[in-house]
Amino acid sequence: MSAKLLPGIKSPADLHKLSDEQLQALTHEIRDELIRVLTARPAHFASNLGVVELCLALHLTFDFSKDKDRLIWDTGHQIYPQKLITGRYDQFHTIRTRGGLMGFPHPGESEYDLFMTGHAGCSVSTVSGLKAGDDLLGRTDNHAVAVIGDGALPSGIVFEALNNIGGMNQNALVILNDNKMSICPRTGGVAKYLDQCRMTGLYQGGKRRLNQILGNIPLIGEAARASLESLRDGLKAWLKDGMLFEEFGFRYFGPVDGHDLPGLRKILRDLKTQKGPILLHVFTNKGHGVPQAAEDPVTYHTPPVFEKVGPERAIVSLKKGGAKGYTDAISFGLHQAMQDDPKVAVITAAMCQGNKLEKVREDFPERFFDVGICESHAVAFAAGMAKAGAKPVVDIYSTFLQRSFDQIFQEVCLQNLHVVFCMDRAGLTGPDGPTHHGTYDVPYMRMFPHMVSMAPGDEADAVPMLKFALAHTGPISLRYPKANLDKIERSEPFAPIELGKAEVIEWGEDGCFVAFGTLLSTCLAAAKKLRAEGINVGVINARFVKPLDKETILRAVETLPLVVTVEEGTLEGGFGSAVLEAANGAGVDARNVVRRGLPDRFVEHGERGELLAELGLDAEGLAECVRSHRAEFAKCE
Amino acid sequence: MSAKLLPGIKSPADLHKLSDEQLQALTHEIRDELIRVLTARPAHFASNLGVVELCLALHLTFDFSKDKDRLIWDTGHQIYPQKLITGRYDQFHTIRTRGGLMGFPHPGESEYDLFMTGHAGCSVSTVSGLKAGDDLLGRTDNHAVAVIGDGALPSGIVFEALNNIGGMNQNALVILNDNKMSICPRTGGVAKYLDQCRMTGLYQGGKRRLNQILGNIPLIGEAARASLESLRDGLKAWLKDGMLFEEFGFRYFGPVDGHDLPGLRKILRDLKTQKGPILLHVFTNKGHGVPQAAEDPVTYHTPPVFEKVGPERAIVSLKKGGAKGYTDAISFGLHQAMQDDPKVAVITAAMCQGNKLEKVREDFPERFFDVGICESHAVAFAAGMAKAGAKPVVDIYSTFLQRSFDQIFQEVCLQNLHVVFCMDRAGLTGPDGPTHHGTYDVPYMRMFPHMVSMAPGDEADAVPMLKFALAHTGPISLRYPKANLDKIERSEPFAPIELGKAEVIEWGEDGCFVAFGTLLSTCLAAAKKLRAEGINVGVINARFVKPLDKETILRAVETLPLVVTVEEGTLEGGFGSAVLEAANGAGVDARNVVRRGLPDRFVEHGERGELLAELGLDAEGLAECVRSHRAEFAKCE
Repeated sequence: MSAKLLPGIKSPADLHKLSDEQLQALTHEIRDELIRVLTARPAHFASNLGVVELCLALHLTFDFSKDKDRLIWDTGHQIYPQKLITGRYDQFHTIRTRGGLMGFPHPGESEYDLFMTGHAGCSVSTVSGLKAGDDLLGRTDNHAVAVIGDGALPSGIVFEALNNIGGMNQNALVILNDNKMSICPRTGGVAKYLDQCRMTGLYQGGKRRLNQILGNIPLIGEAARASLESLRDGLKAWLKDGMLFEEFGFRYFGPVDGHDLPGLRKILRDLKTQKGPILLHVFTNKGHGVPQAAEDPVTYHTPPVFEKVGPERAIVSLKKGGAKGYTDAISFGLHQAMQDDPKVAVITAAMCQGNKLEKVREDFPERFFDVGICESHAVAFAAGMAKAGAKPVVDIYSTFLQRSFDQIFQEVCLQNLHVVFCMDRAGLTGPDGPTHHGTYDVPYMRMFPHMVSMAPGDEADAVPMLKFALAHTGPISLRYPKANLDKIERSEPFAPIELGKAEVIEWGEDGCFVAFGTLLSTCLAAAKKLRAEGINVGVINARFVKPLDKETILRAVETLPLVVTVEEGTLEGGFGSAVLEAANGAGVDARNVVRRGLPDRFVEHGERGELLAELGLDAEGLAECVRSHRAEFAKCE
Repeated sequence: MSAKLLPGIKSPADLHKLSDEQLQALTHEIRDELIRVLTARPAHFASNLGVVELCLALHLTFDFSKDKDRLIWDTGHQIYPQKLITGRYDQFHTIRTRGGLMGFPHPGESEYDLFMTGHAGCSVSTVSGLKAGDDLLGRTDNHAVAVIGDGALPSGIVFEALNNIGGMNQNALVILNDNKMSICPRTGGVAKYLDQCRMTGLYQGGKRRLNQILGNIPLIGEAARASLESLRDGLKAWLKDGMLFEEFGFRYFGPVDGHDLPGLRKILRDLKTQKGPILLHVFTNKGHGVPQAAEDPVTYHTPPVFEKVGPERAIVSLKKGGAKGYTDAISFGLHQAMQDDPKVAVITAAMCQGNKLEKVREDFPERFFDVGICESHAVAFAAGMAKAGAKPVVDIYSTFLQRSFDQIFQEVCLQNLHVVFCMDRAGLTGPDGPTHHGTYDVPYMRMFPHMVSMAPGDEADAVPMLKFALAHTGPISLRYPKANLDKIERSEPFAPIELGKAEVIEWGEDGCFVAFGTLLSTCLAAAKKLRAEGINVGVINARFVKPLDKETILRAVETLPLVVTVEEGTLEGGFGSAVLEAANGAGVDARNVVRRGLPDRFVEHGERGELLAELGLDAEGLAECVRSHRAEFAKCE
């Protein structure tokens, strides 16, 4: 099983030294490497298995080295095979660990990774821009290639880009990597259309000949040309070939078998000589080469660690999942709410599995809407539902919801509609890195009029907060982390959720942590540490950033020597800034306020706990923050 | 010329009382009313002239009263005819004035205006949501109609919505109002496709019969059905009919003449009985009924006031434009930069005219990219250009640029690419109202790592700041208002633009205004007023919010009794908050800081000056702010 060829591939140029048989063997070695990673830690799996041959064929046909041809994988989680053949085989075992390789393209790792991409759909635009830039700088022979999955395809920006490339008649190759899957099974009209393409079978000699004949009919005059073109178009539609893309001004080729390496190389070689916008439709199987992954690509998109792998890459068992997380609590709460109130509907954007909404989908299919990777549509659609009187809940990761910033503004807040936003993965998401961290939602939500913005402090808050949101009458959001549920101990009885009211967990004369969401239990742990040292620091569960509980929080600022605001989000305009604004508005001296949160730089990948510790957001870091500021303030006095 | 029928139309129900001839006469009265508005003030004109018959036909066919059928106009600036027939004729002369009717749909004015819409493309999504909500609430007979212009069509969210409606096979009618125009002439592959539709002429009896025959062929077995469907599809392509939309799962009807009221009524009546997603392609002429507007719909999109109107609605002369604005300065600077540096390219999103880029387009066609209403694509495309080594400038209104929030994050800032953002219309835009005010760009730009965020204080800053931006090496933005250029008097020589450096215009021992951009000259006027009263208040031109000039600004905070931060943007996380954050980080008491800017509510339409005065952001308001806080602080001491 140990790799013989891979260690010798230092760059794609080395691929040319291999025979066809050796290239075939290399595909096996790459798949074995992918298995090896998954026996160590969770990672993107099925999608990478699906693009092994496509990756090799592309690098064998084009030259993607610095300032030459351009290649973007969309989304970037299909980048593993490329990492293995671009000088990163030796470090590959470090992937998705702190300080190791990133699980997405990373320009800092390799000149072959042009853009760090984790949000879907932008490849066609960036490739178009790369081509325009290369043309401007005189590198007109450069080829530009985007590989986009059928899951990313329905994302609006893709059509914007297709339309513009078609309009410019730009030399660009878009490869549709069609594996019939988003992260969840795909939905929508285009999916049906692609299924029809699939039914017609693969690119065949006969069909190709017909196209050649039609292409070679001698043309006499403009009218003849027009009617012959119509004939050709009509026959193409008869053959169900790519009309959708042709309407955007692309020439459509395919579909071709994405696991037939010699076949792929041949068509790519052909297409390399063509001009204008071209779409190549490639069929791949997500999970190809690993029976279990091919059969269940949803589970094997980012599966748990492989406990046991048999011969022929048969995965015998997966490690069992751990404790329940915030996602479980919210999906349970949603299910309950839908049972209680027939007006509640749930909208997600291809994250049915990530948001653990399978049971909601099964039990309430008529009120569950998976719109695909179309976050903008999701929010505007929800606004329409709310206007009609339904109670829509938009359940989307924090980082992806920012794709509907404009719809949150215009369709929801400006109309003051009751749309509930459940922002999963708010804060540091761990091994995925900066494209997936939910860093910006606190400032981007709180800047809009009418919006109420909350975060549960622990498990006890989660479902009551969702219920509160559903009973509200305007735009309202809650953010929660990709983390196990915390259960804090309260000395006082649980304070019910009340608009703009914080919960005082404990009071201490030496200072106070004010936590907005996720890090409340960490603050309690820090307070405990400090108490053991004789420093009596209280903890407030802020719950709301908008409206902020000015009374409670400003009382702390006015009466205590130190107030530390704690948030798992950017400090620029975040929760701590809201506290400063409130203090300023009330004429309160806020020099005793210390803001802790995510710094003004991109935080790379690693385990969430590791990253938080590095940023001083673990219990020891927060305790130290109190100690050092007590010392500093003492000096000042 | 005075209206005889319009005063009697209190609601669309009254339309049914009119004969065909009277309805025809009504279309003339509506057009006369539109002219009447334009002799008083600038307003959206050509687009409204184009939809008079369509508006009447829709309201005659459907019942759009409360909780019945649903109608959204996209964008909302085509709403004038609807306002005239839904009980707002009497107030129509107040349109676009403070306290008067809004130039966009306004739910507060009428139950017929469902959504306040000024950003393009969301209608199809909201209509889909309205339909889903109505279905959920048992109002399954309700019809749902979106009217979308061909300019808005290429916006990504439209395809997201078409795809989802097609996938759900939802009963929804999308009317493509095809007038061959965005605000500027349309571009892109889809535009070419629509032009082909136009070439085939209008919906004809013959073609309709063919479709009927094909639709009625008896079907024997699944295979026969499939091959007959293919035959029908092929023939449709032969006829060049709507394949683009059919691929999304829509049935395509048309094209039909949008100025033939009886014809429109007939086809809408037919379509009302149909199920599933339907696209009706309507040809209208922007400016229909007014010769000059029909000939030059770009100028007559929002023309200057009509000085003289002759018989037959012939517009004899327009009032001349006034002083030069920031937009002129920046477009001049861009032209100059493109002349000096062949790597500079300009990207805009259907705002060639608004951004005054006509000369750039003419002189540098190969480096000018109008991508249509596709802001997300615009930014990702620019990122690609920057990666290739070009110097792209994205020139988009502040409020529309928020549609690329996610691309500013992922494609530009995360990659640390040198893309220059020129954010026109930052601040209050006046009569258009809240959909067009540029309210949020300060917090949404400054929250991203690597971003440099600037605002020119006056004319002297504008072009040097653009030059500075082009000489920078990372993401950088400048914001400027829809306003005439200010030219302030400097006692010191002009301080060149330097990264993160403010300019002290004058220093005063009683306090200081710190202006970020647009309102600098207002601050100087306020300071002058105060000086006449013996209060000596200085003025700082902040220039940068990120990086902030902490040294200069915190010196003011530490040494002066009062510092007023002034910005034409939201106070939530804005410039003033950045000052508070800096003070807090440096341990500086900021109780003497007063923040002035846009409040946490939506500011409605009116003249910019009126609105600023209302918000205390005129010279007197800012002077009064100083007076009142001096008094308050004196009491505290």
